[in-house]
Amino acid sequence: MKAWQYMGDHAPIQLNEVDEPVPGPTQVIIDVKAAGLCHSDIMYMQTGDAVMPFLPMTQGHENAGVISRIGSEVVGFAVGDVVGVNSAGVQPPLGMFTPGGFADKLAADYRDLARVPEGLDLSLAALATDAGMTSYHAMIKEGGASAGMKVGVIGFGGLGQIGARAAVLAGAEVHVAETKEDVWPVAKAVGVVDCVKDAAEWVTPMTGDPLNAASGFDLIVDYAGFDTTQKALNAIKRGGKVVQVGLGKPTFTVSTPTILGKTLVGSLGGTVQDIEEVFELMRRGEIAPVYEEISFDAVGEGLERLANNAVTGRLVARFGD
Amino acid sequence: MKAWQYMGDHAPIQLNEVDEPVPGPTQVIIDVKAAGLCHSDIMYMQTGDAVMPFLPMTQGHENAGVISRIGSEVVGFAVGDVVGVNSAGVQPPLGMFTPGGFADKLAADYRDLARVPEGLDLSLAALATDAGMTSYHAMIKEGGASAGMKVGVIGFGGLGQIGARAAVLAGAEVHVAETKEDVWPVAKAVGVVDCVKDAAEWVTPMTGDPLNAASGFDLIVDYAGFDTTQKALNAIKRGGKVVQVGLGKPTFTVSTPTILGKTLVGSLGGTVQDIEEVFELMRRGEIAPVYEEISFDAVGEGLERLANNAVTGRLVARFGD
Repeated sequence: MKAWQYMGDHAPIQLNEVDEPVPGPTQVIIDVKAAGLCHSDIMYMQTGDAVMPFLPMTQGHENAGVISRIGSEVVGFAVGDVVGVNSAGVQPPLGMFTPGGFADKLAADYRDLARVPEGLDLSLAALATDAGMTSYHAMIKEGGASAGMKVGVIGFGGLGQIGARAAVLAGAEVHVAETKEDVWPVAKAVGVVDCVKDAAEWVTPMTGDPLNAASGFDLIVDYAGFDTTQKALNAIKRGGKVVQVGLGKPTFTVSTPTILGKTLVGSLGGTVQDIEEVFELMRRGEIAPVYEEISFDAVGEGLERLANNAVTGRLVARFGD
Repeated sequence: MKAWQYMGDHAPIQLNEVDEPVPGPTQVIIDVKAAGLCHSDIMYMQTGDAVMPFLPMTQGHENAGVISRIGSEVVGFAVGDVVGVNSAGVQPPLGMFTPGGFADKLAADYRDLARVPEGLDLSLAALATDAGMTSYHAMIKEGGASAGMKVGVIGFGGLGQIGARAAVLAGAEVHVAETKEDVWPVAKAVGVVDCVKDAAEWVTPMTGDPLNAASGFDLIVDYAGFDTTQKALNAIKRGGKVVQVGLGKPTFTVSTPTILGKTLVGSLGGTVQDIEEVFELMRRGEIAPVYEEISFDAVGEGLERLANNAVTGRLVARFGD
C-alpha cells in the first residue's frame, strides 16, 4: 500500500510503498477514506527524531474510514463499521510513535474508535477526530463554556472556528481575536458577536486595584499561542480561566502577579466521547467548519501550503473510495 | 493613638500619632493585640503609590485583637469578642487602600471577622489571618491536597511551613524544596518526607514521550516564585496542578508545550472560613508555625530584617496588652 512517511533529518514527507498492517489482538485495520492535515504534522517534522524516534514514520493523525479487519480481542466493532480514530488515546500517538493515517490502511486500537453516525461526511468525521476533539475538549470540557459566560477565542483557524461555534451553541457570548480580517465574516456568520485583530484590544482599563479588573472575560481559549497568553490573562476577570491550546511560540512569559486569582490550563487532546459529541453536532449541521478537500497524492504539497500559512480552515485528503 | 505609616516615595514606614478610627455602620473597632509582619508589606512600599494611593497609609494586614466598639448594622459580634481579620475580604485591602493594623486600633467590616477560639494565642491567631489563610487556601482549597497525593512545597518560609503541614495533615506525601538547609529539620519534624535545595531536582528523567513524564507530583504549591514555575510544571504529572502563591520575581517564562495537560492557578487570599479552619488546627497544636515576637515599637526594624531575608518563619508584633 502507499504511505506518506517521514524519513528523518527534518525532510518533507515522501510517498512510499509499504507493507499492509496486520492487526494486533486489540486492533482493527481501517481502510482510510479521509485524513486531515494538521499544523502538528509540520511541528513533528520540524522537531524531528525527538517526537518520531522510529523511522520511517507514516504521519497522519486525523482519520476516518471503514473497518476491514478485526483483531482477536476486539469488542463492539465489526468489519464494515465506519469509524474515526482518537489519535492520542490508548495507543501511542498516531503519526509519531505509531504509524498514522496518511496511508491506505491504518491499525488502531478499538478503544480509540468513535462511531461515525449515518449521514456524516467522512471529511467532517476526520476533522472531528483531532481538530474537532481538541478544540471542543478545550472549550467545553476544560473551559466549561456555558450559557451566560463571556468567552474569548484567540485564533479563528482550523481549531478556533470549531471552538468558537461550540461556545456559541453552549449559549456563551463569544468574541474572537484573529489577525486575518477576511475570516471575520465567517466568525460573525456562526454567531460570534465581535472580532478584533489583537487580544490586547480586550484588556479593560485599570480600575483602582491593579490586580482586579472589574469586568472581563470568564474564559479565553487560546488556539494560537503567539505571544497571546499574557494578553489572555489580562483580559479575563478574577476567577476566570485561560485554556492554552495553540503552541505558536516555544515559550511564553507572564507577569507573575497577573496570574493571581486566575487559572491557566494547557488542554491536550480529548476522548472518544468528545469525538462522538462533535460527530453529532456536525451531523446536525450545527458545526460546519471550513475545509478544502485534496487528493491523497497531494498530501505533501498540502502540508507545504499549511506550513506557509496559505490555508483558510482545514485541508482534508480524500482517498481510497 | 500610634500607627506605623507609609508616607510615600518608597520610604520606610514611620511611627506617627493619629486620630482613633470611628466605626462605619458595618464596622467594628478592634484593639489590636497582635500584628504579623509580611513580605507583602515590603512589596507594597517598593511598589509605592500604585498600591497605596491614599497617603499616609497605616500598613499591617495580619491582625488579631479584641472588639471595643460596634457599628450600628453589625450582626453577630459584640464588644469583648476576640477576632482575627481577613484583610482582603469585603473591605478594600487593609494596609493598602484601608488603614491597617500596625496601630493601636483598627476598623474592620464585621463580615471579614473570624472568631478566635478560646485557648489560641493571639500571635498565632494573627498569623492565621494572612500567612495561615493564604497558605492553607492555596494548598487545601485551590490545590485540593488530600490523602494519597504526592505534593511538593517550594519555599519553607512563613507560608510554606503552614502549607506543608496542612498537606501532611490532609494525608499527602509532602516534599519540600528550600535553599536554606538549616530549616530542613523543621520540615522533617512536621512530617515532610524529603527536602531538596532546588525544585529542579524533582524533575523525573524523560521516558519516551517528551510531554508526558510517567511519574511526578500531583500538586506543587510554589510559595517562592523565584524562577520556580517552570521547574514545578516539569515536576508534576499530566493532569497535575501548580498553585502559584509566591511573587519572588516580577515575571516567569514557561516552555509552551510543558503547560499541556497541566493546570497553573494563581492563588490569592482566602475566606473567613479558611481562617477559622486554620485557627482550629492551631488551637489543637496541629499547625505550630515558627515565629518570633517583637514589640510594637520594633515594627519598622522588623520589616528591615524581613527585607534582608534575615528571619526564619514569621515576625509578630505584640502590643496593646
